[in-house]
Amino acid sequence: MKLSDKGELSLLEALRRRFWKKAPGLVLGIGDDAAVIKLAGKKMLLTTDMMVEGVHFDLAWITPFQLGFKLVSVNVSDIYAMGGKPEYLLLDFAAPGDFDLGKFESFFRGIGEALKEYRISLVGGDISSSDRVILSATVTGSASRVVTRGKARPGDVIYVTGCLGDSAGGLLVLKAMNTSVEVEKGAKTAFGPGWETVGPLIEKHVMPRPKRPGRFLKSATAMMDISDGLFIDLSRLCRESGVGAKLYLEKIPVSDELKNASAFLGVSATDLATAGGEDYELLFTAPRREKVRAICIGEITKRGLRIVDTKGNAKKILAKGYRHFAV
Amino acid sequence: MKLSDKGELSLLEALRRRFWKKAPGLVLGIGDDAAVIKLAGKKMLLTTDMMVEGVHFDLAWITPFQLGFKLVSVNVSDIYAMGGKPEYLLLDFAAPGDFDLGKFESFFRGIGEALKEYRISLVGGDISSSDRVILSATVTGSASRVVTRGKARPGDVIYVTGCLGDSAGGLLVLKAMNTSVEVEKGAKTAFGPGWETVGPLIEKHVMPRPKRPGRFLKSATAMMDISDGLFIDLSRLCRESGVGAKLYLEKIPVSDELKNASAFLGVSATDLATAGGEDYELLFTAPRREKVRAICIGEITKRGLRIVDTKGNAKKILAKGYRHFAV
Repeated sequence: MKLSDKGELSLLEALRRRFWKKAPGLVLGIGDDAAVIKLAGKKMLLTTDMMVEGVHFDLAWITPFQLGFKLVSVNVSDIYAMGGKPEYLLLDFAAPGDFDLGKFESFFRGIGEALKEYRISLVGGDISSSDRVILSATVTGSASRVVTRGKARPGDVIYVTGCLGDSAGGLLVLKAMNTSVEVEKGAKTAFGPGWETVGPLIEKHVMPRPKRPGRFLKSATAMMDISDGLFIDLSRLCRESGVGAKLYLEKIPVSDELKNASAFLGVSATDLATAGGEDYELLFTAPRREKVRAICIGEITKRGLRIVDTKGNAKKILAKGYRHFAV
Repeated sequence: MKLSDKGELSLLEALRRRFWKKAPGLVLGIGDDAAVIKLAGKKMLLTTDMMVEGVHFDLAWITPFQLGFKLVSVNVSDIYAMGGKPEYLLLDFAAPGDFDLGKFESFFRGIGEALKEYRISLVGGDISSSDRVILSATVTGSASRVVTRGKARPGDVIYVTGCLGDSAGGLLVLKAMNTSVEVEKGAKTAFGPGWETVGPLIEKHVMPRPKRPGRFLKSATAMMDISDGLFIDLSRLCRESGVGAKLYLEKIPVSDELKNASAFLGVSATDLATAGGEDYELLFTAPRREKVRAICIGEITKRGLRIVDTKGNAKKILAKGYRHFAV
């Protein structure tokens, strides 16, 4: 039997059962955006993510600077998604010996830019050789109130913090152009529907800036970031909370840029918004009575995952989105 | 210019200068075995290590179980080397989709064995696909007294906690046999000088058990673990402390097993003991007046790195050992 016969989710679930253990100080282990440990009365968050060239990114479409920035951002996104404040970064970097030194420095300029953006410090890590670029980052954080995926309740309203699908659209544009664009230096590239349309999508893909959870912390009952796609991530939140959800298709925020680019590329903006992934927007739930300044896209129900289309017809949601070892 | 034109150490040094920053709570950043941060009055340690198939290991010579055990051990070794107690593990695992599920489970049995051995908990991480096995682990720890690499003083005695070179000898034996050996199940393999000779070497390579620093903590002025080789690691300790060292060749502990296996393989046991690496023994210094139950191999001097051979001749130490992007 192979890994792909099981699929990522069932492998993770098995590990979670296997290694679940009540340890002193451990508040929350495997299964949420970050682990939570208690240290001298304070809640500390820990998260890690690996990015492998050819699997998670292609240097044909992303500059080393953007890659460094993005690596930190996706980890910070996990800390934000728990209601935390990121603090320290550990970094493992591997690349071939003939990797260009200028690109290496550019990668670390991107890391430096992210450190400034998120006000965190690089405190350790390792460099080694490999036949391709392999990156792994660990980010720590702290939180006074931790928001997990597990406490959404029927009747809660479902919110997201921004337009979905832009990042996936940006990746499609980059693939179609087959080049990277140095947006960090103000570079623009002429392509199909024009830079005003594709620029914001590309930027969202190569330099995602996750939303801070601060203003939603008071109200949120459950929270996570959208990294693999709205449908699959919402299905995870619902499973953890033991609830269902009803979404309204017309409420899912899709930018005009994505609509235009999708029309040009001949793809479905809705598919990108619901299953594209790498949005790094927050997905959270809050009681109906709370005033929340985010985009309402549906509500938590007792069970089932459904989406109501523009004609009022409810359909079952298939948990589409990015999964490793997908079956 | 390429990464290999600079070499690992100079790249790390440049990053250290670039990212050195006095941040609130940060006690020690890049440059030691682990980072140290202060959290609510307590010292917390953070370390991370990546292992890439074909670079750091070869599944022809190590079983998945041993690999899991070793991944945790090498990170725990960094925590011990700071005088700390390991607490939590985060793990990133990547492998091809057709990776055998039995091997995957065996890898996690090895992880589980290490969790028991070191009394730590797996609290998070990630699984993704890749065309080879790529592992990254982050281990946290705590310490009441942190021992860095930077406080050795002239006159201090240099100690190690066990025989050196066994692990490198074990790897040579495994390569010569071109097979892995399931020592964790009591397997033995007939080879040249016999299992009594090669068994302990192989075990030290595939399932290293780093030494706890407890009994040396009171006396140690500087401490690190030997992962890349005695010479290169001692040169790092001396550079951080701004001192020199004099070693005595006949004092460097070499096991009979390594002597026998080296004679059989036609290699130098001394080279393996001084530059083989992956020993995961502690290397530390302590004032001469302290009673220390470890193996004395030399003394700290004001400057220079020298080794005195059996005839009493002093030679300059070349910092040999494993370096990525070696020049």
